[in-house]
Amino acid sequence: MAINLGIFSAIFCLLLGSAFGDWNILKQNWRLGSKGLVDITLKNYCESWRLNVEIHNIRDFAVVPDECVAYIGKYMTSTQYKVDSERTVQEALVYLSTSCNLKKDGKDAWIFDVDDTLLSTVPYYKKNGFGGNKLNSTSLEEWMYLSKAPVLDHSLKLFNELKGLGVQIILVSSRDECLRSATVDNLVNEGIFGWTSLYLRGPDDASKDVQSYKADVRKQLISKGYRLWGILGDQWSSIEGSPSAKRTFKLPNPLYYTA
Amino acid sequence: MAINLGIFSAIFCLLLGSAFGDWNILKQNWRLGSKGLVDITLKNYCESWRLNVEIHNIRDFAVVPDECVAYIGKYMTSTQYKVDSERTVQEALVYLSTSCNLKKDGKDAWIFDVDDTLLSTVPYYKKNGFGGNKLNSTSLEEWMYLSKAPVLDHSLKLFNELKGLGVQIILVSSRDECLRSATVDNLVNEGIFGWTSLYLRGPDDASKDVQSYKADVRKQLISKGYRLWGILGDQWSSIEGSPSAKRTFKLPNPLYYTA
Repeated sequence: MAINLGIFSAIFCLLLGSAFGDWNILKQNWRLGSKGLVDITLKNYCESWRLNVEIHNIRDFAVVPDECVAYIGKYMTSTQYKVDSERTVQEALVYLSTSCNLKKDGKDAWIFDVDDTLLSTVPYYKKNGFGGNKLNSTSLEEWMYLSKAPVLDHSLKLFNELKGLGVQIILVSSRDECLRSATVDNLVNEGIFGWTSLYLRGPDDASKDVQSYKADVRKQLISKGYRLWGILGDQWSSIEGSPSAKRTFKLPNPLYYTA
Repeated sequence: MAINLGIFSAIFCLLLGSAFGDWNILKQNWRLGSKGLVDITLKNYCESWRLNVEIHNIRDFAVVPDECVAYIGKYMTSTQYKVDSERTVQEALVYLSTSCNLKKDGKDAWIFDVDDTLLSTVPYYKKNGFGGNKLNSTSLEEWMYLSKAPVLDHSLKLFNELKGLGVQIILVSSRDECLRSATVDNLVNEGIFGWTSLYLRGPDDASKDVQSYKADVRKQLISKGYRLWGILGDQWSSIEGSPSAKRTFKLPNPLYYTA
């Protein structure tokens, strides 16, 4: 009981004290609270931050907490990140082979995000503070114009599997319409081709948050007669909102949050 | 690319080969696939399993994969599990203090699960294969009749905070109605008291899955005029389904899956 309250009051003080925290304060309070019986490490703290981001308990964060930037940078370039992502895709493949009764009439469809689903923005974030700096959209878009984002192989595997089954692949990205040509070049150069539609945010979508924009696209697709079997995305805003798909699969991404 | 396909094909073979896998096959395939460049550990594999359970990519599992039972047992009795759970509760407290405009008219409400939210079943699972054995409902209920499940201090903190603010606390559990007296005893003995209602599954709910049963309870509560500010639960079936609450918070629990 004393131990639990120790961790608890430490994290509580931390959260009330500053936006997302000062690890030194947490550490100090925790030591006081635990009376030296148990100690938590910075890794414990950053892992709990990451897990709670992934479960969607932590929302709307503007930056990765300063003390976890190194941890998150390490994770995003680790074998663990690859294995985690591949497991997500494997679950999608198992679902596809066991639960999807495809009609193969050109109306079976699957939705993909682009950034950090098909293409990785990790090289950009690696050079720009690994989630620890507030997003600079201009700088990120300049990088996207270069069309140099590398493919994420696990997602490409699902993409090609779906293509082989005659499922229509719909890409729905929150990138701006002005990036269309750069995005198409980047995708094709990385071996990603054969999609049915690529939705980007046009002037009509500018006032919408990402979740509403993506839900509106799904509404249009359903009204065109598509059966949305699945979504693969790295943000909850790609998956939540109504209408959705029959199943959704979220890839890990603790680098940033898109509402 | 070779590395990614290596992990990928290994996990793919694994999943197709057996229900949720044989770590030895994965390991062998991965070594072949990776040409010795990178190696994944059992820890990588089990962590990716746990993360994908928490994100809700892996659903409906009957047991923890055999090769991950030791890993999951270790996690459920670790500081990390405590820190993860406390972070979940902290986010609920931050939401409560920043985003809930309570009217204090007796209609503000918050829903809690019982098992592995307020009371821990870890002592039971510790003696019964740590998620590696298929659920034996009779044996679990016999244990519940003893009223010896320990409190989870992090959730009690939120419970007491809400009680202090005059929020009505509604407990919604998938335990059977016949366990009412044992459940009340257990809760009170562990210092949990002052709830408004305790919903258990009666004969009318027997045909419903847990998600539908819990959604139906929320529907009743809303029709009684309650404003559901939040849910704290450890299963997605406590959180998903319509109607929901304004925000939901999921505690970690990779021990079992309730649909």
